[in-house]
Amino acid sequence: MVQFVGVSDIVKLINQVGLETVLRDLADRLEADFKRWPEFEKTPRLASHSRDGVIELMPISDHAHYAFKYVNGHPKNTARGLQTVAAFGVVSDVDTGYTIFVSEMTLLTAVRTAAMSALAARYLARPDSRTMALIGLGAQSEFQAIAFAELVGIEHIRAYDVDEAATAKFVRNMRGRNFSVEVAESAADAVVGADIITTATADKQQATILSENMVGAGVHINAVGGDCPGKTELEAAVLRRSAIFVELTEQTRIEGEIQQLAQDHPVTELWEVITGQAEGRSSRDTVTIFDSVGFAMEDFSALQLIRDIAQQTGHFQDIDLIVEPRDPRDLFGLLTEADAMAEA
Amino acid sequence: MVQFVGVSDIVKLINQVGLETVLRDLADRLEADFKRWPEFEKTPRLASHSRDGVIELMPISDHAHYAFKYVNGHPKNTARGLQTVAAFGVVSDVDTGYTIFVSEMTLLTAVRTAAMSALAARYLARPDSRTMALIGLGAQSEFQAIAFAELVGIEHIRAYDVDEAATAKFVRNMRGRNFSVEVAESAADAVVGADIITTATADKQQATILSENMVGAGVHINAVGGDCPGKTELEAAVLRRSAIFVELTEQTRIEGEIQQLAQDHPVTELWEVITGQAEGRSSRDTVTIFDSVGFAMEDFSALQLIRDIAQQTGHFQDIDLIVEPRDPRDLFGLLTEADAMAEA
Repeated sequence: MVQFVGVSDIVKLINQVGLETVLRDLADRLEADFKRWPEFEKTPRLASHSRDGVIELMPISDHAHYAFKYVNGHPKNTARGLQTVAAFGVVSDVDTGYTIFVSEMTLLTAVRTAAMSALAARYLARPDSRTMALIGLGAQSEFQAIAFAELVGIEHIRAYDVDEAATAKFVRNMRGRNFSVEVAESAADAVVGADIITTATADKQQATILSENMVGAGVHINAVGGDCPGKTELEAAVLRRSAIFVELTEQTRIEGEIQQLAQDHPVTELWEVITGQAEGRSSRDTVTIFDSVGFAMEDFSALQLIRDIAQQTGHFQDIDLIVEPRDPRDLFGLLTEADAMAEA
Repeated sequence: MVQFVGVSDIVKLINQVGLETVLRDLADRLEADFKRWPEFEKTPRLASHSRDGVIELMPISDHAHYAFKYVNGHPKNTARGLQTVAAFGVVSDVDTGYTIFVSEMTLLTAVRTAAMSALAARYLARPDSRTMALIGLGAQSEFQAIAFAELVGIEHIRAYDVDEAATAKFVRNMRGRNFSVEVAESAADAVVGADIITTATADKQQATILSENMVGAGVHINAVGGDCPGKTELEAAVLRRSAIFVELTEQTRIEGEIQQLAQDHPVTELWEVITGQAEGRSSRDTVTIFDSVGFAMEDFSALQLIRDIAQQTGHFQDIDLIVEPRDPRDLFGLLTEADAMAEA
C-alpha cells in the first residue's frame, strides 16, 4: 500500500506538531539538503502552458528516493473561487521504482516556500533585520510572515495588498502573534523602514511591484511571486544594482525576475552560499535579492519531512495505488482471482 | 474531491464491463485519438535512469485535459517478487490546472499496450492472420493474447518463454478461451507458421529474441518488449528488411528497436496510417514491424476511458488531494479552522 496524506491529514499533522516547528524543521532539512546539492539529479521542470495558466512536473532524485511535484499556476482561478496553485507530490523508491508516498502539496508548497524564503534570508539579510514589508497578501502571505518571525527574528510587518479583502484576511489571521502588523497604504508606503521586502503577488504578467526608487541600501528582497515566464515583480533597475541569488540558475533564467536581464548576468546559486563556497551579503549596504522560483529539491525536502511526521503521528491513509499480485508475472491473475472471489 | 481508482476498483470495473469490452472500447478510443494526433501537445517522456531501472513521467495534453503517467521499469524487480512496472496516472483540467482523476496504471498499462498492439495490427498485419507467436509470457502476455483474439481474429497462439513457470501460468490463465494455445520449444519453434509475431520480453539489455532467419515473408512483428535505451529484442537485420511503424519518431529513436539503426532510417508514424496519409502494408510479402514503446497519448486515451467507466459503475473513491478553502486566498484559514473545530 502507498501512504497518502490528504488535506485533512496534513492539516491535522501540522496542527499537532505546530506550524512554527514544521517551518523550523523544514528549514533545517532544506539547509542539510542544500549542503549535499551535488548529490541530487536535477532537471528543470517540465511545463505545459495554456491560455490561462501552466501545469508543471518537477522531478528530482538523490539516488535513494525520487520525488516529483505536480503543480499548476492559474492566476484567474482566484476569481472563480479556486486556488491559483493546486499541487500534490509523490515520493518513490529508486531501487524498485515503487511509489511509496503521495501528499497534497498546496498547503505544503506554501509552507516550504516560506521556510525556503526564511532560510535564504538567514544567509542574505542583515542579521539585525526586524521589519519586513510584505506586498501581496494572498495564500502565501501568512506562512511568509510566520516563517520570518520564527526563523529570521522579524518583529514588525508592514503589509500591503491592492485587495482590501485580502488585507483584512491577513490582519485577521495574524492577530495575537509574536509580531506586529501595520497595514500600509501602498507598496511604496510598505517598504518605508523595511529591512526585508517580500513580494508575493500573483499576476501572470510583467508587473512592477517594486521600482528602483523604493529600494534603500542594505535591504534584502525576497521575490516570491515572479515564478514563470512573463511574470515578474521587480523593475529591472532594482536587479541591476543588487547581488542576486537563485536556486538553479538555468531554471531561474527562464522563470525568475532575472528573465529581464541578459543571459550572462552574474548570479550566485544559494547552495554555494550555504556550503561556504560563495559569499552572501558583502556589506551592510548591499541590496540582496533572493529570486525565488521554487525548485524541486525543496519539495523533496518537504515531502520527506511530512512523510516522517505522518508516520510519527499516524495522520495518513493507505491507498492501493500499486498492484501487489502474488506472482509479479501474473498481473492477469488479479482479474481472475477477483472473479473467483466474487463467485465464492 | 479527486476521483481515485485504485487496484481493487480497477479490477472491479474491468470485471464488471468485461476485459474484452474494455479492450475493444479502448482500441476505438485510441483510433479516434490517433485521428486527431496533431491536436495533442506532445513531449518526449522525462526519464531518470538509475543502476537497476528507470523512472519516467509521460505528460500530454489535448488542451482540454492534461494527463501524465508515472511509470518505472525495473527488470530485476521480478526476482524480488515485485512488478517490473508499477505505474499510476493522473488527469487534470487544463482551464483550472486542477487534478480531477487519479488511477492505478500497472494493470491499465498492460490493457492499453495490448489494445494499442491490436489496433496497430489491424492496420498492418495481413487481414487473414490467424496464428500468432507470443514470445515472452510475463505480465503483458495474457492481455496481448486476448486483445489479438478479440480485435484481430487470432485463433491459434504459439507461446514461448525461457521460464517454465511463466509458461505454465500463461497456459493456466488462457484455458477455456476462444483461441488455442500451443507451447513452443523455443522462440524459433514458436514463429513457425505464425502470421504475427509478438515479442514481449523484459530484459534490460540488447537481446536477440528474433533473428533474421526466423522471420518469413508477410509476417507482422509486434515488438512490445524493447522500450528503453539499451533494450532491444530484434536483430538489426530484421529491421532493415521491414517496413517500420512507430508512435512518436523522436521517442522511438531513443527507446525502440530502431535505436540500432541510423538516425535517418525511414520510419512511418502510425497516426499517418490511421488517418490515411501514409500507406501501411504495401504487399502480402512485406514484413511490417510495430516498434511499440508506449506513448503518452495512449495513456491519455486509457485514463479517459477508465474515468468514464468509473463514473458509470461507481467503482472509485473520493480522496482529498486538493484543498478547498472557503476563500481561495485563505489557505492559512484551513489550519485555524481545523484548530477551532478541534477545540469546539
